[in-house]
Order: sequence, then structure tokens, then C-alpha cells
Amino acid sequence: MVQPRPVIRKLVVIGAGLIGGSLAKGVKQRHGCEEAIVVVRRQEVADRALETGVADRAVLSLADIAPELNGEDLIFIAVPTLAVTQVLEEIKNTVAAEVTVTDGASVKGNVADAVVRVYGTAPAQVVLGHPIAGSEKSGVDAANPDLYENHRVILTPSDEAGEKHVDKVKAVWECVGAQVVEMSIAEHDQVLGATSHLPHAIAYSLVDTLAHDIDNPNIFRYAAGGFRDFTRIASSDPLMWHDIMRANKTDVLQSLDLFMANLQRLRGAIESGNSEYLLETFTRAKTARDRYIHSQVKQKNA
Amino acid sequence: MVQPRPVIRKLVVIGAGLIGGSLAKGVKQRHGCEEAIVVVRRQEVADRALETGVADRAVLSLADIAPELNGEDLIFIAVPTLAVTQVLEEIKNTVAAEVTVTDGASVKGNVADAVVRVYGTAPAQVVLGHPIAGSEKSGVDAANPDLYENHRVILTPSDEAGEKHVDKVKAVWECVGAQVVEMSIAEHDQVLGATSHLPHAIAYSLVDTLAHDIDNPNIFRYAAGGFRDFTRIASSDPLMWHDIMRANKTDVLQSLDLFMANLQRLRGAIESGNSEYLLETFTRAKTARDRYIHSQVKQKNA
Repeated sequence: MVQPRPVIRKLVVIGAGLIGGSLAKGVKQRHGCEEAIVVVRRQEVADRALETGVADRAVLSLADIAPELNGEDLIFIAVPTLAVTQVLEEIKNTVAAEVTVTDGASVKGNVADAVVRVYGTAPAQVVLGHPIAGSEKSGVDAANPDLYENHRVILTPSDEAGEKHVDKVKAVWECVGAQVVEMSIAEHDQVLGATSHLPHAIAYSLVDTLAHDIDNPNIFRYAAGGFRDFTRIASSDPLMWHDIMRANKTDVLQSLDLFMANLQRLRGAIESGNSEYLLETFTRAKTARDRYIHSQVKQKNA
Repeated sequence: MVQPRPVIRKLVVIGAGLIGGSLAKGVKQRHGCEEAIVVVRRQEVADRALETGVADRAVLSLADIAPELNGEDLIFIAVPTLAVTQVLEEIKNTVAAEVTVTDGASVKGNVADAVVRVYGTAPAQVVLGHPIAGSEKSGVDAANPDLYENHRVILTPSDEAGEKHVDKVKAVWECVGAQVVEMSIAEHDQVLGATSHLPHAIAYSLVDTLAHDIDNPNIFRYAAGGFRDFTRIASSDPLMWHDIMRANKTDVLQSLDLFMANLQRLRGAIESGNSEYLLETFTRAKTARDRYIHSQVKQKNA
């Protein structure tokens, strides 16, 4: 996976949290760029990024480095979803049109809308994307250079996206070991809404129910290992997930409604003691989940 | 954790799946009994139990060994919840009243009812319990002698339970490294209903929704690691969970209704874009979940 030569000149990562910091550190360690630069808001994060080898340079404003950038460079936007618009405006105002711009936001429809709002069109230089990797950890200290190894990255290029920009974004992700696929924005937001955003909503709601709606202070004390795994995602960053729920509202609500209807049917079966329904549903779900795990393993070994 | 001497004479485990097989293998490896015997229904499971060191002896009928048992012995019932009544009848008909009897079923209220139905009273020899350990794996080959190390076992002895029987059950569990606590049946079934049975119902229902209610054959293809953990418990044994949902119906429905009401409120907040509600709920849930993990770690290190 290690590339012999840099795949780009300068890598500029805006936001040095888990997602951005991991890309900067990963590309830097693999010598995939000549210089890895992070743009952050606070001096202490800038200092920490340099101390921990996340970047070669850390600045507090994109404007400081924008004049240096050219067609061999790439900007990766890795800020919370609802902060993307402001960053796009800064890029439009300060960065040359040949610089490639991509992002890592979990929802693509609202970012694509923001691009059109800011630029008045979908410019050739912008190629939106989403790495399907993460962790309940966050912040610059969570940066992991191997986070993207064997993980998928979904790119959702517009019809207007330039081929060399798409290729450059691909090359950077492949440099850190990711597998790049392309998808429409509509499909991306539906699939992620159902398999990622919905489970987060459920996990947060379940933990909240147990902690606050059930009147038993010992409720967590005897919870088993299954509970720990099941609720891991409820330890995720609340602000990030607030943004995602708002940004992907339509798709989240659609899958949430299907889930609540399914759960309501299951509830009915538990209440009426409908063994056939319970066994059928549990068996069908186990089969689907086992098949999914099997396909993941095959994919990893391929 | 290894005991220098046997804590009991004969350990009889009825049902050599994950839960029963792990206790038999664990006690046997730690020399906690003079002989570990499993009672199973199929010859191939009996053969497999002997081949894999789960037991010293494997028989197909409790009646074959019942005459050998005395007050130094312990029977552990580890069959699916709804099959417990039949096993209890067999025990009552064939086993002496001084033999200690315990079980590992996930729901205690219905087993306690079955005991009274079978014996006409709660006999001194019966001490019900539930090891809070498990895995999505099942069957004799899943038996793990260290499954119970550092895990809690909840005992729910009746007022009529004999002290020496309670002590013997405790000693056997401590022999395999478990921490024994006592609790009322009502509290056990509420706590487990909320922290274990409810999450299983949700996980099965979510996977079923994704696999069958959402019209996208690629839905699982791009699911992230969070999804794998979140749905792990949906790979659990359907028959076992069918039994549990039926056996703990009242408590499961109670926590399920609280969860659905909480999720309905969250749905409203997503729809109306109520940032305050979303942030508050996610933060509160994250705090509760982080606190739970912290207490688990402390407990493990204690």
C-alpha cells in the first residue's frame, strides 16, 4: 500500500479531528505528499498536530497558505457537516480554481447543495466524498494513520467534476489503503441514513431511555457485553451527530419510520405470543446479518 | 482463581451448549469437581463434548445417572428457557431432594413459576441463577472454559432456598472466576429486560428492516464498523431469543414502550430541526454510556 512517490504536492486538511487528522497523518507517513498542512481554529490543536506527527505545518487560517496552492494540491474539508458552507466560502474566495477540493462529511446531499449555493454551480474542482471509517473517539489525539486501511471511501462526483480532480482524490485515498467506489448522492444518503445514521439515533435513544426513563439506578450495573457493543456508537460526538441528523433529515426519517413500523409489528408479536412471527423475524435477521459479516470477511481476504 | 480442591463431587450439566458447556469445561479444567457429566439429547453432541474436553462423561438421559447423585452434587440446567419445565419434572421424578439444582436461564420469573408448578412449592434444593455472559455463538463447540471469568452471576434464591445449596451454587460459580450477586426476581427481570432483551429485539428488528423493508439490495454493502458492532447481537440464536421474549414478555414490553416513546420524541426533534433537543439527548446519552464504561473498567481493575 505504501506509494514510492508522492501522489500530490501539498495536502491541506481543514479540521484536524479523527477524520482529517487520520488522513493527514496517513498520507504523511506514507510519503504520499510533499507537505501535509492542517488548518485548525485553536493554537493548542495546531501545536498538538505538530507534536503528534499529524502534519508538517499547522496554520490557523486558510488565507495564510491559500496563495501557495496550485493544480498539484488537494484540500480535504474535515469539519462538522453544518460548518462546511463557511469553509467552502473561504475556499472560493482565496483558493485557485485548479486546486482539487474534497470532503469527508457523512451526508452528501446538503454539502452538494452548499457547493452550488456558494459557487453558483458545481465546479470542476470539487469532488465530494465520504470515508466509511470512524470511531467513537474524536479530536486530534484520535488521529490514526491506518484508520482507512481496507475501508471503503464513497465518492459522489457531480457531472461537472473534472476527471483529473476525481483521479487525484482517488489516488490520495488509495495511498492510505482505502478502496474507492463511486455512487450517486441520493443512493449514498439513503444507504448511510439506514446503516449508520439510523443506528446512531437508536443507540442514543436506547441509552437515554435506560438512563432516564426507567426508574432504576442500578440499570447499567448488570448490563452484559452485548450491551457494551450495542451502545458503543452512543459514545460518539453529540455535535457531529446533531449535524448529521439535521443534514440527512429526509433519509433518516424515512428509514426511522420503516424501523418503527417493523418494531411495532414485533411488539405486537411479543404481546400476543406469536411464536411464528418471532422465530421468522429473528431467523431472517440472523441470516441477513450473518450473510453481511460473511461478505465483509470475503471482501477483506480478497 | 484455580481452587486447590474440588468444591463439589459431581457436576451434572443438562444441555451442553455455550452456557452449559462452558461451565462444565471451566469447572473440569479447574478441578472444581470430581466428575463433570453432561446430559444431552443427541449422541453426536455427547461424542463432541467428550472429544473437546467439555465433560468426563456424557449421557443421553438424566435417569441414567440420577441414582448416583447425592448432597455433594450439583445439577445445572442449561437448556432453552421454555424447555426448563420438562427438565424440572424429570429432576423431581428421579433426583434426591438433597441434590442442589440451579439454572442459567436469562429470565427468572417464569422459571420460578415453573418450579412451583412442578414441585407445588419452592424447594430448598433449588437456587435459580443467571450468568451475565454469553456470545452470539452457540453449540457445544462454542464452550469456553474462561467464559465466566470476571463476569457477574446473579442468583435469585427464594425465601425457602437452603443455605448450603446457595453456598454450593456460589462456590461453583466462583470456581470459574465469576462474581456472584443476589437480587430479587422482579429486579432481575426488569434490569435484564431493559439492558439485554430489549437491545436484542431492537437489533433483530433493525436488521430485518434494512434487509427487507428498505428497497435497496446494496444496503449492507457500505455499512461501516459501527453497524457491525451494533448488530452483533442480531446473530444470536433465534430460538433462544424467541423463548426469552415470551418468558419475559411483561418487562420487555414495558421497556420497549418507554424506548418507543423516547424514539418518537427524537423523531419529532429531527423532523422539526430541534437542535436543542437533539444535542441535549445525545449529550445525556453519551455521558451515561461513558459513565457505564468507566464503571465497568474500574470494576475489572478492582
